[in-house]
Amino acid sequence: MGAPWEGPARDLLAELGTIALIDHHVHGAFRASPSEAAYGNALNEADTDPLPPGVDPFDSQVGFAIRRWCAPVLGLEPHATPDAYRARRAELGEAEVNRRFLTAAGVSDWLVDTGHRADDLLTPAQLATASGGRAHEVVRLEALAEQLVSADTPPQRYAAAFRSLLAERVRGAVAVKSVIAYRAGFDVDLTRPSDAVVARHAAAWARDAARAGSVRLTDPRLIAFGIHEAIELGLPLQLHVGLGDRDMDLRRSDPLLLTDFLRQPAVRRVPVLLLHCYPFERQAGYLAQAFRNVYLDVGLSVNFVGARSASLVARSLELAPFDKVLYSSDACGPADLHLLGARLWRRAIARVVGGFVAEGDWSAPDASRVVRMVARDNALRAYPRLSRSSG
Amino acid sequence: MGAPWEGPARDLLAELGTIALIDHHVHGAFRASPSEAAYGNALNEADTDPLPPGVDPFDSQVGFAIRRWCAPVLGLEPHATPDAYRARRAELGEAEVNRRFLTAAGVSDWLVDTGHRADDLLTPAQLATASGGRAHEVVRLEALAEQLVSADTPPQRYAAAFRSLLAERVRGAVAVKSVIAYRAGFDVDLTRPSDAVVARHAAAWARDAARAGSVRLTDPRLIAFGIHEAIELGLPLQLHVGLGDRDMDLRRSDPLLLTDFLRQPAVRRVPVLLLHCYPFERQAGYLAQAFRNVYLDVGLSVNFVGARSASLVARSLELAPFDKVLYSSDACGPADLHLLGARLWRRAIARVVGGFVAEGDWSAPDASRVVRMVARDNALRAYPRLSRSSG
Amino acid sequence: MGAPWEGPARDLLAELGTIALIDHHVHGAFRASPSEAAYGNALNEADTDPLPPGVDPFDSQVGFAIRRWCAPVLGLEPHATPDAYRARRAELGEAEVNRRFLTAAGVSDWLVDTGHRADDLLTPAQLATASGGRAHEVVRLEALAEQLVSADTPPQRYAAAFRSLLAERVRGAVAVKSVIAYRAGFDVDLTRPSDAVVARHAAAWARDAARAGSVRLTDPRLIAFGIHEAIELGLPLQLHVGLGDRDMDLRRSDPLLLTDFLRQPAVRRVPVLLLHCYPFERQAGYLAQAFRNVYLDVGLSVNFVGARSASLVARSLELAPFDKVLYSSDACGPADLHLLGARLWRRAIARVVGGFVAEGDWSAPDASRVVRMVARDNALRAYPRLSRSSG
Repeated sequence: MGAPWEGPARDLLAELGTIALIDHHVHGAFRASPSEAAYGNALNEADTDPLPPGVDPFDSQVGFAIRRWCAPVLGLEPHATPDAYRARRAELGEAEVNRRFLTAAGVSDWLVDTGHRADDLLTPAQLATASGGRAHEVVRLEALAEQLVSADTPPQRYAAAFRSLLAERVRGAVAVKSVIAYRAGFDVDLTRPSDAVVARHAAAWARDAARAGSVRLTDPRLIAFGIHEAIELGLPLQLHVGLGDRDMDLRRSDPLLLTDFLRQPAVRRVPVLLLHCYPFERQAGYLAQAFRNVYLDVGLSVNFVGARSASLVARSLELAPFDKVLYSSDACGPADLHLLGARLWRRAIARVVGGFVAEGDWSAPDASRVVRMVARDNALRAYPRLSRSSG
Repeated sequence: MGAPWEGPARDLLAELGTIALIDHHVHGAFRASPSEAAYGNALNEADTDPLPPGVDPFDSQVGFAIRRWCAPVLGLEPHATPDAYRARRAELGEAEVNRRFLTAAGVSDWLVDTGHRADDLLTPAQLATASGGRAHEVVRLEALAEQLVSADTPPQRYAAAFRSLLAERVRGAVAVKSVIAYRAGFDVDLTRPSDAVVARHAAAWARDAARAGSVRLTDPRLIAFGIHEAIELGLPLQLHVGLGDRDMDLRRSDPLLLTDFLRQPAVRRVPVLLLHCYPFERQAGYLAQAFRNVYLDVGLSVNFVGARSASLVARSLELAPFDKVLYSSDACGPADLHLLGARLWRRAIARVVGGFVAEGDWSAPDASRVVRMVARDNALRAYPRLSRSSG
Repeated sequence: MGAPWEGPARDLLAELGTIALIDHHVHGAFRASPSEAAYGNALNEADTDPLPPGVDPFDSQVGFAIRRWCAPVLGLEPHATPDAYRARRAELGEAEVNRRFLTAAGVSDWLVDTGHRADDLLTPAQLATASGGRAHEVVRLEALAEQLVSADTPPQRYAAAFRSLLAERVRGAVAVKSVIAYRAGFDVDLTRPSDAVVARHAAAWARDAARAGSVRLTDPRLIAFGIHEAIELGLPLQLHVGLGDRDMDLRRSDPLLLTDFLRQPAVRRVPVLLLHCYPFERQAGYLAQAFRNVYLDVGLSVNFVGARSASLVARSLELAPFDKVLYSSDACGPADLHLLGARLWRRAIARVVGGFVAEGDWSAPDASRVVRMVARDNALRAYPRLSRSSG
């Protein structure tokens, strides 16, 4: 596992190898082998332009991390060349690639956002089978709304129809998720709109969607409506925060913009999980300290910063109480990323927390306990339905 | 002192043990033993909700740091359990707890903000006695204003009454402090209001206070008035920046929002001390570089990030000239925190600056000199009255 | 070279000693020996007030770094005192000081911004001669505009006159630069104004300039005009980002405020180079990932954070693909800074990337390749004219 580690970091890494993770925010793996372009794009959350000649998508932290940590799972040497890696991946085929990476990740439970690119990705059930673990659904609220407008739901019935669809869809789910960060930013009115307001906005949306030929929901009042409906059902709420693609305005996803939202009494009653957070992880940690129901992870970001992931994980362990930090990969598409998130995170937290022990700041038993909390216990507390179904 | 340190960091830590610190921003210690809830709340600046079952307030960086560094001062093993720690604390009683921690802190001078929870805390004189050091008062401007409105000062006399009370209260004080970050944020009009404007705002405040049954000052014009009155007296101005409780909007405490305020000619004439600063310590360092009269510390934050404090102290030593960085604990309540701030800071700066020496970037004598500047010399320069009284 | 380094970091540092850098953003060196005050001011980007008694401008990270890394080039011991350093500098004279530092920097190509303090500084040709390298001009857009208003260009002819002057001035240049961050901030309308709008704004500016007796351009519409004219010519666009002097509002130079600008189709067609970036280097890295044509450096900042520069360089290697990060010193005035940027950057990247290799995250050949990309190859790709002239 790389250079020889010594002392507490090495011991913690060994212990982490025996702990099955709960990946509390993830997407499916590819059903079929991606094109070279599709694979390359999966290595860059933000930029989907074609690359200029001579530039390789592997020339980034995530690309180097894949060559280092994923190549051996495919039977290649660490640091295999991009060409060798792509060839080996194609040779094995996606089913075998998935099987290898998903089982090697050491994850017992996947909490799967099913509202994004569902046609290309394994369903939760398929992910469970391929990995030998359990999978649980997370319902993406904007996808439900878009389903309604696609079905020409009359605007005056939109609110009722959303409630009914939500109730049905969350029956087997463990949480909901909103991507309002992408669609509108957090600096919008996040109070609960009345049904009359919802009807008016739904009508405007239907008109715009017909005109534009796209149902993509960006209206903050309708997104806020969905969020408040889900909160009323008592479901944990996942929120995309920070790092995302070029469509988003990163400044508007600073989680401190959620402060007023988090102060709303209704919101205080459900777990709110801030996902990714980079480069606002310190701000997220402040919120996790200030609000009893707020949690955070640094998923997605861990993969994208690769060799710099220990520094990121360290920042996630500053203000946030230790029961408020969770593990996720946010992998989406190549199962390489499902494995990589787990591999990098285990190394990063072992390095960071092992460093605390080596410095004499933490005791070794405390370090083991915190690592286990972040690896799985905190997720069991934050997602009550998970705890029942994983019991 | 934890793991064996070597070389320059160890030498600096030994030297720091012989340097009495000036804690330039602190509150009193508890007069009496706190309830378990009150003690737990002191470990979380932001969140005062009751904790759910199974969650311990010691499960955070500050809690781990207390168990590590404070337990031995109470005669316990390092990393004592929370239960053992609480029991031992209660057994010794607050007077003995205070005596032990306050003397062990190695602080010669405490600059005490007396405007917050004064009934529960030792006075400066009592703090001096318990610690064997000197204590100096810092007057909290909002507390003076609230005293006036509580006494039903007629609005048209508010400005004059404030001036008179301020002149009297600062007679024996070394500085003033404003918590405008909590009450209004920095993105408000911070120019000097006329007395007529003050009278109008004072009248509105008196009406609101009567209606609400609370005199909490949040009007930015009245706070700006107090700040400008204090500046006119030539007193150093402490400003709470960054990290605070849930009442505040952390975004609005970004010190860069003070740029226009700091450009005002009147403001340039007094030292302005930016307190805590997390997570905006780099922004504060920029201001300390850009404005000759601006200083910063990372007090409070050092305690709250615990094992991560070396990283924080390192960030405070980037842009800011070395004569512009000060030490504080911002401890308030448990004297554990008065000791912890000093212990963590000494270790952090020894580790950071010792690292510069070990890398060959700094000379050992320069390192000693900078450490001494931050430990005490800079405070003597920033607070002229302190220098006279500590002479 | 300081403390003994081991393993991959040492090997990379040795290798870096053989790689000639391209300093893609720099100014000229002093023509004549600066006064002590002028030299001191060059050590503080932000604050040009006189220093109080007992405060030395060398008491900062950049000052310590000069004493450590520049003193030996002048024949002094490392960590020479400020007085000895100043005396030795004066004794040698600026021509010899320049020769020593500029040749020791190991830079093959300097991309020189000629629009700032040109009277005090060497021209590109003189810099080339003194260093034994090549120099290339970068045209500062605001300086062209100010030249026009100084020459009483009629407002209705301003647009045409700017176009004509720009076309002439960029003939031998490799790029243009805008300091809109200083002059207006990024939170302004950065779309292309029509010539009629330009004429109106030029008229207002001429009136204001006559009244104020200063031609300093701050009108964001006129600055945007200049930027779009340059983009039309296909020239790479350098933008000052982050850290600057006290005239600027640092908050308004957050590069995320450029997101809408970067989305404009015309802007996508030229390389956009984000300079300095501190403390927004993570935000800049996000943009470099999100936009194929966006690059970043941490020049200027590396010098100012001195012993903390490895941490800064590490942050520049997170999200940004490795072909998007460049080296610069942004030195301006004392040639000490031309050398220091190169020295600190070589050490920092060797330390950081060497650390990735030592941890087992990167292979040694990959590390060498990335270091060479940042040192020079990426600049050759970003500046097509440079590549031709340096062929």
